[in-house]
Amino acid sequence: MSNLDELLRRRHRVLGRNSPLFYDEPLNLVRGEGVWVYDALGRAYLDVYNNVPCVGHCHPHVVEAVARQTATLNLHTRYLDENLLAYAERLTASFDESLNAIMLTCSGTEANELALRLARFVTGAEGIIVSDNSYHGNSTILAALTSCFPAGEPFPAHARAVRVPDPTYDRQGRTDEELAAVYARQVQEAVDSLQAAGIKVAALLFDSFFANEGLPDRVPGYVEQAVKIVRRAGGVFICDEVQSGFGRTGDAMWGHRRTGVTPDIVTMGKPMGNGYPVAGMVTRRDWIDRFGLTSHYFNTFAGNAVAAAAGAAVLDVIERQELLSNSRRVGAHVRAGLEKLATKHPIIAGVRGRGLFFGVELVRPADRAPAADETKRIVNRMRDGGVLLSRTGRYNNVLKMRPPLVFSVDNADQLLSVMDDVLRSL
Amino acid sequence: MSNLDELLRRRHRVLGRNSPLFYDEPLNLVRGEGVWVYDALGRAYLDVYNNVPCVGHCHPHVVEAVARQTATLNLHTRYLDENLLAYAERLTASFDESLNAIMLTCSGTEANELALRLARFVTGAEGIIVSDNSYHGNSTILAALTSCFPAGEPFPAHARAVRVPDPTYDRQGRTDEELAAVYARQVQEAVDSLQAAGIKVAALLFDSFFANEGLPDRVPGYVEQAVKIVRRAGGVFICDEVQSGFGRTGDAMWGHRRTGVTPDIVTMGKPMGNGYPVAGMVTRRDWIDRFGLTSHYFNTFAGNAVAAAAGAAVLDVIERQELLSNSRRVGAHVRAGLEKLATKHPIIAGVRGRGLFFGVELVRPADRAPAADETKRIVNRMRDGGVLLSRTGRYNNVLKMRPPLVFSVDNADQLLSVMDDVLRSL
Repeated sequence: MSNLDELLRRRHRVLGRNSPLFYDEPLNLVRGEGVWVYDALGRAYLDVYNNVPCVGHCHPHVVEAVARQTATLNLHTRYLDENLLAYAERLTASFDESLNAIMLTCSGTEANELALRLARFVTGAEGIIVSDNSYHGNSTILAALTSCFPAGEPFPAHARAVRVPDPTYDRQGRTDEELAAVYARQVQEAVDSLQAAGIKVAALLFDSFFANEGLPDRVPGYVEQAVKIVRRAGGVFICDEVQSGFGRTGDAMWGHRRTGVTPDIVTMGKPMGNGYPVAGMVTRRDWIDRFGLTSHYFNTFAGNAVAAAAGAAVLDVIERQELLSNSRRVGAHVRAGLEKLATKHPIIAGVRGRGLFFGVELVRPADRAPAADETKRIVNRMRDGGVLLSRTGRYNNVLKMRPPLVFSVDNADQLLSVMDDVLRSL
Repeated sequence: MSNLDELLRRRHRVLGRNSPLFYDEPLNLVRGEGVWVYDALGRAYLDVYNNVPCVGHCHPHVVEAVARQTATLNLHTRYLDENLLAYAERLTASFDESLNAIMLTCSGTEANELALRLARFVTGAEGIIVSDNSYHGNSTILAALTSCFPAGEPFPAHARAVRVPDPTYDRQGRTDEELAAVYARQVQEAVDSLQAAGIKVAALLFDSFFANEGLPDRVPGYVEQAVKIVRRAGGVFICDEVQSGFGRTGDAMWGHRRTGVTPDIVTMGKPMGNGYPVAGMVTRRDWIDRFGLTSHYFNTFAGNAVAAAAGAAVLDVIERQELLSNSRRVGAHVRAGLEKLATKHPIIAGVRGRGLFFGVELVRPADRAPAADETKRIVNRMRDGGVLLSRTGRYNNVLKMRPPLVFSVDNADQLLSVMDDVLRSL
């Protein structure tokens, strides 16, 4: 039995057979540095998938901060902690003025759970509107709202799902303005449908980059109108920045900055501590104060001293290494390169994304149908070629790329070169 | 403005006014070592409250493991990781044979959320029975089930709360057997009430040590009968070991070992990584396998490489420093000392707890009514005297003590001496 088979057997025994695992031939990674990860045999892989180590695997500044604080003190937020306050102040300062206070959590799931609790508290309503190909977490309520993969629980009676416009499939000759209006109408219908059932609208919950929807290009005006409709109905806008936050899209620290809408609540997570478990919810201070009067909320690990140290170190690196501009610059280089590949490979129907968050949409050249099988094959062949990425989208036919923000032009060229080879080999 | 006032002002501004904080005069802790924590002025406090740093604040073996793994690789469970498997195998080996597989989470909240999802999945039922003075987490569903402090959400229609027997208040001349039977009857009534409402029973969710209920002495037969009733109705027993696990009670690694009942699902958290955010749910492998067929469960930070390293280091220290026997031995010394104090101070109505998890129940000597105000005052005076503890229980009149497991006889004597002084000063 090979070592991989043996690991797989042990894994199935102790974690169960269905714990998700990447690739037909799983990887046994043992080391990481910058944009590189290494398997047990010493083989290097270019990491174009993992956004959690956003400033690079094992960045020395973050490693040092985590090690130092772990050796100094690691307690919860029921004592005063100057480091936590400084971090929270710095983080909230990156938002519009109305988003001036934060509650920390351990995970994006906990952040979205808390956001829903808060939204329902401030509105006194129950209804939730989400996209029809979305995922916001693994708790009972969030699992029930999940539509981009099976989650067991039935979709809740208090929720409605709307389709987010994807220009590639949905334009049908329409202008952006028409497209925005047609799909915003679905949001109005969701509001009407909830109200007809006697359910008031508490929140619209959208990923600011629609990552699970396949990273569709933005339709100007759509999110703006959707939020307006929900607010008119008394609901609030929860913007999920768990994937798209911290400079990922290259435009700004937060994906929602491009829409011109200031959310009522923003949730964040994954890259926040470069791998240290920390997440949070930013909103209006007066809402947090009011919520705290009726709900005693405490979260043991959330905002502990090491989480604050890791989070601050991540902000340091993003600033010092100018990772926003790197994200923008290298992202543009990747996108141009992918567009060039599209002219050579008819399977590529389109290139999506901004900054270091991009997708390649694949269709069968014969009938332009989504090429899900081919996309899966490409993901596996890229892995065999030493490049790690994944797939997403309504039809599972969008290559998903989200490398650490220290991704360079050289890294990009390697990605493009391997992808060219793989596409040629199909 | 003093430094503490300034920190408090900043905290209210960025975390909100109602984020829970210990003590009338909050502490600004900056360093920890073993059972000691230090404030910004260098004053030492004996930590008799924090169970999260279970092997001691900043234990060098855990610090080294976290630092080393953070510098090596920190990724999620969608790749193979031998260290995670070895840790999961070691942890599940500490349970009865039927509890043979684990799903990792970031927090106790996530573990209990997942346990409820699993229980509802395997039973096809919705009904939940909890104690009427309990807390199992801060998500929407778990907040709604909370009864030991305000949580905002109404108690759910699909749930019932039962009173757990506390011999101090509930014995009324009954034998243990009679007491168990009387309170088990409440569980049967909860089952009947759910079924009368057309709700089938999914789970009984109990803390194995009834920490929020005030650490009542065990009534032999009660949990056994409660579980039997729930199982007969088709439900499962979820045992919450978030507070009582990892040797806390001195009897065994898990608090439920004392009852003679093997739970169907066990959740754990707080001390698991000595402060590194990690938690989990242990249950039968075939349930996890079946759950995974219909529910795609993934949790980004849960079971990452550093969590596994921290968790394994904690198990190393528990074994090498023989902390179970220390918990038992020092715990017995503390309990004897507290019982001696009880003979001197009529405010002490009783001493509770086992291992390094103990309580002192305080009543007004005049009328034997719960002494909540006095308990609060004692907690604050103990803090002023350099000893950190808190309070709990149905009437907020039980001093709650849960020091790191490296607590020594000398530490215990200091605790007892300061408590003697504080009680005398009332």
